[in-house]
Formats: sequence, C-alpha cells, structure tokens
Amino acid sequence: MAGDDLQALRDELGRITLEILRLVARRREVAERIGEVKERMGISLLDRSAEARLRARVLEECRRLGLGEELGVRLLNILVENSLEAQGKTGGDEFAYRRIFVKAAEMLRRGERIIRMEVGEPDFGAPQSVVEAMCQAARQGYAKYSSGQGLSELREAVASKTSEKLGVSLTQDNVVITVGGVMATYLSIEALTRPGDEVVVVEPGWPLYKPQARLHGRRVVEAVARMEDGWSPVEALREVVGDSTRLIVINYPNNPTGKVLTRGEMEEILELAERYDAWVVSDEVYMDYIYEGSPVSVLQFTYPKTVQIGSFSKAWGMTGYRIGYLITRKEEARRMAHIQNLIITNLPEFIQKAALKALEEDEVVRRNVEEMRRRLEVLCDELGRSSQIEFRKPQGAMYVFPRIKAGTDSVEFAWRLLEEKKVAVAPGASFGQGFRSYFRVSAGRPVEELREGARRIVEALEESVG
Amino acid sequence: MAGDDLQALRDELGRITLEILRLVARRREVAERIGEVKERMGISLLDRSAEARLRARVLEECRRLGLGEELGVRLLNILVENSLEAQGKTGGDEFAYRRIFVKAAEMLRRGERIIRMEVGEPDFGAPQSVVEAMCQAARQGYAKYSSGQGLSELREAVASKTSEKLGVSLTQDNVVITVGGVMATYLSIEALTRPGDEVVVVEPGWPLYKPQARLHGRRVVEAVARMEDGWSPVEALREVVGDSTRLIVINYPNNPTGKVLTRGEMEEILELAERYDAWVVSDEVYMDYIYEGSPVSVLQFTYPKTVQIGSFSKAWGMTGYRIGYLITRKEEARRMAHIQNLIITNLPEFIQKAALKALEEDEVVRRNVEEMRRRLEVLCDELGRSSQIEFRKPQGAMYVFPRIKAGTDSVEFAWRLLEEKKVAVAPGASFGQGFRSYFRVSAGRPVEELREGARRIVEALEESVG
Repeated sequence: MAGDDLQALRDELGRITLEILRLVARRREVAERIGEVKERMGISLLDRSAEARLRARVLEECRRLGLGEELGVRLLNILVENSLEAQGKTGGDEFAYRRIFVKAAEMLRRGERIIRMEVGEPDFGAPQSVVEAMCQAARQGYAKYSSGQGLSELREAVASKTSEKLGVSLTQDNVVITVGGVMATYLSIEALTRPGDEVVVVEPGWPLYKPQARLHGRRVVEAVARMEDGWSPVEALREVVGDSTRLIVINYPNNPTGKVLTRGEMEEILELAERYDAWVVSDEVYMDYIYEGSPVSVLQFTYPKTVQIGSFSKAWGMTGYRIGYLITRKEEARRMAHIQNLIITNLPEFIQKAALKALEEDEVVRRNVEEMRRRLEVLCDELGRSSQIEFRKPQGAMYVFPRIKAGTDSVEFAWRLLEEKKVAVAPGASFGQGFRSYFRVSAGRPVEELREGARRIVEALEESVG
Repeated sequence: MAGDDLQALRDELGRITLEILRLVARRREVAERIGEVKERMGISLLDRSAEARLRARVLEECRRLGLGEELGVRLLNILVENSLEAQGKTGGDEFAYRRIFVKAAEMLRRGERIIRMEVGEPDFGAPQSVVEAMCQAARQGYAKYSSGQGLSELREAVASKTSEKLGVSLTQDNVVITVGGVMATYLSIEALTRPGDEVVVVEPGWPLYKPQARLHGRRVVEAVARMEDGWSPVEALREVVGDSTRLIVINYPNNPTGKVLTRGEMEEILELAERYDAWVVSDEVYMDYIYEGSPVSVLQFTYPKTVQIGSFSKAWGMTGYRIGYLITRKEEARRMAHIQNLIITNLPEFIQKAALKALEEDEVVRRNVEEMRRRLEVLCDELGRSSQIEFRKPQGAMYVFPRIKAGTDSVEFAWRLLEEKKVAVAPGASFGQGFRSYFRVSAGRPVEELREGARRIVEALEESVG
C-alpha cells in the first residue's frame, strides 16, 4: 500500500520537476526576445527597475506559498543570470593588470631592467624590529594550531589602537585577523551575502572585489564614479543602490584614484545603505596615506552593519607577511572567523607576533607616509609635463590615475610601454569597464626610479598619441 | 511599438517566473508527503536510485530543451536540497572536536595541567634549520607579492622529490603550494565541482571535508567504512558512488583509524571513480607515518583525474607554518592557483623558503616517524588494558580510534574526561554520524604524557561504563 503511494508520489515529483524545466526553457526564450527588442531600441540590457519589480513579486509569492524567501531569491537569481546570458551581457577585464604583473616579474627574472610602477606594493619592506620579532617568535615555537579568529593579544591590540585613533569603543571580539586585506573582503562577501545576492562595487576600484564576489555567484552591480566629480562616488551609488542591494564595497583613500572621502560623503553613503538595509564593507587599507583632507572611517558612525578592513601591507611595508584584519559586529566576526578556519585553519602565530610588534612602530609609518607624499609630488610633476593626459592629484593612497585624452586603449599602451620603454603600469581596464583609456601609476619605488619611469611614460605618450 | 512589445514580453517573463515558484511549492508538498510515507515504512530518507533516475530524466530533458545540463543540474540540486529539508534530514556534529579543542586550550591558558590528546598536531616543532632558513629569508626581504601558485623553486623541489619517491614524472606546473592541507582540499572541491554537485566522503574521516564541501552548496554523501572490515573503504564506496558522483575524497594513512590502503584497494577505488568519471582527491598528509604495509599514492596509477595532497605539518612538525601542496594536472593546478590568489594573494615567500629547507631534512622525518611509532605502541598497550573498548592497531598516521563497547556517547565521555581527568580527546561524532561511541586519541605528545593520559582514559572508562 504505502509502497504504491511512494511510487505515485515519486512519479508526481518527477512530473513537476520536468514541468519546471519546461517553464525555465520558455523563460529563456522570452528573455532572448527581450534582448532583441532592447537591442533594436538601443537600451541597456540591465534594467534595474524591471528587475526590482519582478523581485518584489517573487518575494511576495514566496511568502504566500510558504516557500521561504531565501529559496525564492536563489531561484530567481539563477534565472536572471540565465536570462542576462541569453541577452548577451559581457564582463570587463579585471585581469589585464595581473598579466602585466606576471610579464614584468618574468622580464625582471630574465635580467631585464624594468621600472615596476604597476604593482601596489611599497618597496619599504618590513621594519627591522618586526622581522626580528617574527624570528624570535618562531624560535620560541609560536607555530602551532590556534584560533581562526586570530591571537587574542593581537586582536586586543588592534581593537584598542583603532578605538583610540577613531574615538570609538571596540573589543577583541570585534576583530578578525585575516590573510591580508584580500581575505578580509572575501570573508565579508562570503559571510554577509548569499549566492545570487547583489553586491555593489564602486568603480574605478581595486580589481579583485568583482571576481571575489562572482566566485560564488554573487551578482555584481557597478557604481561608476567620474573624474569630473572629483571621483566622488555618492551620485553613482545613489543611481544603483536599491531594494535588492545587500552589500556595498567602498575603498577610501581610493585605489586607484587617490580620492579621500569627506565626512559628509561617508554620511551620505551610510544613509543610503541604511535606507536599503545593506552592509557597507569599507576597505580602509590606505587610511594612513592621506595628504589632503582628514581620515574618515566607517567605524565613526552609528550605522551598525559595517565592516572596516585594515592591513599591515601598505603602512608598514609588510605586503608579503600576508596579514590584515577586519572589524565588525561580534556575531558577524565569529561567522567570518569560522569560514577562515575552514579554509586556512589559522594564520601563523609568528606572523601575528610580528604584526603585534608593528603596531608599536608609529614612527616607521609616519616616515613611510612622508616618503610616499614626496614620491607622489614628483610623479605628478613629471606626468604633468605631458599634454596627452589629465589626472587629479591624489589626496591619499599610493597612485596616480591619468586618462589618455585621445582615448587610447591603455591595455595596448601598457604592453607597448613595457616592451619598448621597460616601464610597467596597470591598465585602466582592470579598474572598471569605463576606464579603458586610463592607467594607474604606482609610487612603490624610490623617487629617482619613479622620475625616470614617469619621463619614459611621457615620452611614450608623445610618440604614440601625439 | 517596440516599447509595447517589451512590456508584453516582460509581463510574460513575470508570469512564467511565478508559475515556476508555484510548481516549486507543489514539489515541496509532494516531498513532504514522501517523507511521511518513508517514515511510516521505516526507510531511509535518502534514496540514491530514485534520485539518480530523476537526475537522468532531468539531464535528458535539458538536452532536449537546449537548456544546458549545468543549469538543469543546479536547479535540480536546489530542489533536492529543499525536499530533503522538507523530509527532515539532519546533519552530524563535525564541530564537537573543535569545541573540545577550544576548551582545552582555554583551560591550559588558565594554568590547568591538561594532557592534550585531542589535537592532530605533533609536538616536534619545526627543525632548527627550517626556523633559521625562514629568518634568513625574511631578513633578505623575501616578503613581496608573488605567485598564487607558489614559488617556482619550491614547486620544482616538490615535483622532483615526489617524482623520485613514487617513480612518477611531475613538473612544477603540476604543483600548487597551499595554506596547509586544509586549503588544498578546499581548492580541490572548489575547482573541480560546482554548487549542487555531489561529493563522496569516506567516514570515519577528517571532520572538515564535509563543512568545506557544504560551504558552497555541494551535496555530501558519506561512504561509511567499518572496523569489522579492517576499516577498508572499498565496499562502502561501491555502495554510494554512482552517476551523480563528481568527486571522491579519500585519506590514507587514515585519520582517525590509522588504516593504510593496499595497492589493490587503491586500484579498486580508482576503477570505481573511472567508471563514473569522478575526481579522486587523495589526502596523503600522513604518507610518511606508515608502520605496517607500504606507501601507496594516487599518483602511482594511470587514472588522470586525481589530486594528491601533501603537507609540511605532520612529517616535519610544521603545523603552524601553514604550508602544504597539491599535485594534479596542469590545467586544474592553474585553476586552483587562481582561486587561491583571489582569497590570499600568495603564501609568504619566507615560509616557502622554510619549506624548501625542510625538503632537505630527510633525517628529521625519519626520526619523527620512529618516535611516533613508539608512541603509538605505548598508547595501544595502555589502552589495551581496558576491556571497555576495542580498536584496531593503527598501521599509519598518529591516532588510535577506540570504540566504547557499551555504546556510550563519546561527546559526553570526552567532556567528562576533560573536566574530571584533565585529558582531552576528540569525540567520534566529529568523524562521522555512525561513530558516536568512538573517540580519537592523538599521539602528538611525549611518550610519558601519553602513558599517563591513556591510564586516565582507562580509569575513566572503568568508572563510567564498568
């Protein structure tokens, strides 16, 4: 009896499943036709308001059917992704930079003299005291399995130093020590969103936010800032942030533009996020490198759904130590630590001891920042000699981000520059789809090398464009 | 005109979407009724053959509809997951071990004298020469951004050492240097499967394979080995591996049972994988710790869809250096390196230099293995005094895995043992659902401490069970 029931029910399950597939196929056909119509009409494929309306209806229907909103959203996102594919939407070129980096490293290994202004890595190196603190810790056997959230004493030190600096009140439970800033953004996206959720990224921006978000099926929506607005992201965010936005990634002082956020701008961004109940992940790894304006951190405001990201890479020149941190609410910090534990177990204790030492070295940071200011002055002076480009003087960070006025594709330009002038720069396409005629020049090298590099860039610009 | 078309098409898209949701809701109802019938009949919720038949029909229908199999499989997996949830299937307790670990560490910090036999960490510590190699590299500034796949010279050394040892022929392109074995299994699952794909895991097994697989929506199916079969996994794998299996994780010498695979057993597993075109990820981090039988590696066979995982943690006592590697086909190695690059950028170069030095220290490994053999002998002798437990003498690895004959829940037992006898062991529930009355004892401590710990375990067993 029950056996018959079971078979009948299973048959029905199968019929329903196939019926769902047929509807998915029909949906795809309709999406293809929409793509055709849009193309005829010359309008953008991505229609935020149409999508938002559909999303609202789907959520309502899920509630009515008792299906759970989460399942509905996941299904809808798979369907939307599938129809955008049918409509023929294509991505940018985040890895253009990585290819230049690999090529430059290879040329260097072969003995060629390359001026490397493509990589976001200061040449300062870790302070001597930090190197020695690490060696001592390793000799003392600080090399065991430990917490995925980080050593208690280091989290405590990060919490109290940050609290003091920003006038806030944090405890070690708010802190997760991460494998550089890169793991911190990754964990934030992983823990705060789900596959299919929408992540808004400001462009131009650090090339890896988008592939990190897409790695596990988040939908990326770009907010495009413009040089004409002094690279302020506020208007661009207003245009795209909406009901379906779950998380916004911002990065100020900005890589690559050098824009520093004002207090008012941060306030506006957080108000926008609050209106739509979205998380704000604020990558503040260049916070010490400010030459104009004052530091403003996401932690200084009352909106609670925020993550601040910091790093030992830039201010202390510890890129290769691979250590950074994130600061957020306790509950979310625990969840992110759990994910990090699943992927790497924990960071080496001796590296965490090194970072602890670095936190005492304020003078080193001050010196590094002064040096970086001087380098950027020189870079701006030299690059300013070319009438072929325009740029805004960076207020912070470590880069200049010029636009080639003639609209030349900078991927091509960067390759020619590397091959003919032996200077590596990062193509603008890596920082966003609309920035193909921009390129990023990093001030990670000694001032004389930068001067020479900038001269060759100006030379190449005159030859190729002029 | 076109505007009207667009609106009509969008309305249709909306109607179809809602219709899909209604069918999903009906499907869930049917699944709930199937769960009820199964419960009345007393049969298992997970029915592999019914699921396999449905899967085959779905794939056929996707082909017929021109939908792409991938989309079909992803949808089906979301639906199946949703119906298993409706049928009330529950998971195991992989984190029972982690809770004991955290508690033991905390007690130790508070000054209590705890004998820690829960953690899979030898107390040997890194060889002195390795510590010094790391310090030297850090002083020389080997702390820059570099390849996500690992330093060329280290990959080369791993490739040639493994080739020599196993009589195979590898190049550095086959190798990815990873953040310990844990990142290697994670990257393998990430790169070789997609959300919804089925991953088969042998139990009892290392607790984190399952949460790693589930982190991004892989379906986990357990193949349960039995002590009565000498912990051979072959029959268990035969029972569950099938058409929908995309990847099989095996781990020999095994944690926690100490089972060493025979050549014949490995052959049978690979044949099974080949029949269903599944990947085999072979976690071989205990390969040096073999006391009975000979090493057998997945690399010694012709089946190409394999990943071998190695680590510097166990043989060299370098757990806290967080460095391991994986060996696979070039194409997949590149893909895994790309993902690792997105998450951590790269491993610290100075740690890779330390690992390079470790590869020269064969004598240290020989000594560590001899010591571990001696410890396991002592552990087995001492634990053998209790008539309350039974276990098989480990042929490899670093653990004894006894079963409490009375069927006592070992989570409870482990907590009592920790609190009353100050001895930490890992509860069996962490290693698989069917192993609640087992516990794992690790030989990571000096022999006299182990002897004392084992005596207290025997005492506790007599008190609580006898």
